Amino acid sequence: MSEQREAGEINPGGLGYLKGIAIDAVIFGFHDSQLKVLLIEYKRTGLFALPGGFIRELENINDAALRVVSERTGLDNIFLDQFYIFGDYSRYQPDEFKKIMSAGGMAPPDGHWLLQRFVSVGYYALVDFTRAKPTPAIIFDSCEWYDLTNMPPLIQDHTQIVRKALDTLRAHLDDKLIGFNLLPEEFTMGDLQQLYETVLDKKLLRPAFQRKMLSLGILERLSKKFSGGAHKAPYLYRFIK
Amino acid sequence: MSEQREAGEINPGGLGYLKGIAIDAVIFGFHDSQLKVLLIEYKRTGLFALPGGFIRELENINDAALRVVSERTGLDNIFLDQFYIFGDYSRYQPDEFKKIMSAGGMAPPDGHWLLQRFVSVGYYALVDFTRAKPTPAIIFDSCEWYDLTNMPPLIQDHTQIVRKALDTLRAHLDDKLIGFNLLPEEFTMGDLQQLYETVLDKKLLRPAFQRKMLSLGILERLSKKFSGGAHKAPYLYRFIK
Repeated sequence: MSEQREAGEINPGGLGYLKGIAIDAVIFGFHDSQLKVLLIEYKRTGLFALPGGFIRELENINDAALRVVSERTGLDNIFLDQFYIFGDYSRYQPDEFKKIMSAGGMAPPDGHWLLQRFVSVGYYALVDFTRAKPTPAIIFDSCEWYDLTNMPPLIQDHTQIVRKALDTLRAHLDDKLIGFNLLPEEFTMGDLQQLYETVLDKKLLRPAFQRKMLSLGILERLSKKFSGGAHKAPYLYRFIK
Repeated sequence: MSEQREAGEINPGGLGYLKGIAIDAVIFGFHDSQLKVLLIEYKRTGLFALPGGFIRELENINDAALRVVSERTGLDNIFLDQFYIFGDYSRYQPDEFKKIMSAGGMAPPDGHWLLQRFVSVGYYALVDFTRAKPTPAIIFDSCEWYDLTNMPPLIQDHTQIVRKALDTLRAHLDDKLIGFNLLPEEFTMGDLQQLYETVLDKKLLRPAFQRKMLSLGILERLSKKFSGGAHKAPYLYRFIK
């Protein structure tokens, strides 16, 4: 039985789950100069949202987040980070959830645990979107990648959550770069610059970028990339373990 | 009536509060090369902890944190930041809370809301400890500044929470510097370096420190500080608004 059915339809008291606290995951997908975000669409509602989930009574919150993200992407060992807890009272919008549950064939009583106020722990990750297998759950229509520049409106404060996750990703890219594991074992400075330019959504000056990257002390320079004409061949780099 | 009495003794169901979620605040205090942290001691238990509190049903979590910190320090307008949510199952230690409540003259029934699993939203701030007025609540013996290098053992995972807050403070000092408001309107590079050396707990090389600070683009250089012998007088700086 799916977690969503277990959490919603036949469990109005939320037995077995922490109450009032959920997880929302902003999974960014990168590949070939494209930056996307994983979104779900709830069946027969036209409502879009971030993939999320609940925390089991005996579960660590970080483990619950890994479980949720693994269920939606088919990826294990994702480098997933908490970035903020969204706890404003104004995010309490029970009518949206009533609509979602009704469209899913549930008729939740007023005291249903999912219709109470929730705070949400935000997590973010950056993965290669060609490696993920987006997987909807029973109550979703779809789970798909959307271009960041072309997202549909999202329920609650989910658009703000994406925005804040993006700010965090941009601010911490230097520190998280190795963990994200987005480049091949050996790569050129141009590959790295393309990743930065895509995430930051701006062009960077090559000499300054290269200087900054080398100053981080995380890159090891290897031989030149073979390309027939050796003169212009770029150096290959790898991350220092 | 104090919040603690209201939350504990006469309210075993936690009416009016969010369940299972609390706030812990790591308030660092700086002054004259000293770095301290604000801790409470629970009456007749010898148990030390971070100051913390609960969230009212209609309250934003960030507002609850400001309220709690203001109650403990007498300071308003503190520059307070979330830094992590502590959600491991292993932090659930109901026996410690039974001891604290019993020592406070309460005899909590087993189902008491404060004896359930809680997750905690961690906040941190850095204030001038000479400006704060540490204020205990009814169930605490004391609320006092402790040298960071000489903290007593803390309940639950509170020592880890302090450690993680300190890592965050150190990593983000450049960005938060102006907000913390720890220096006089006009200050010398030496004053600034003393602040950094105290927070980072290490000596810094003056030329490299000055170069880095000037490169942040947040300092405006003023006239030299008057000191009789003009030759060696240091420049004064202020933050660019």
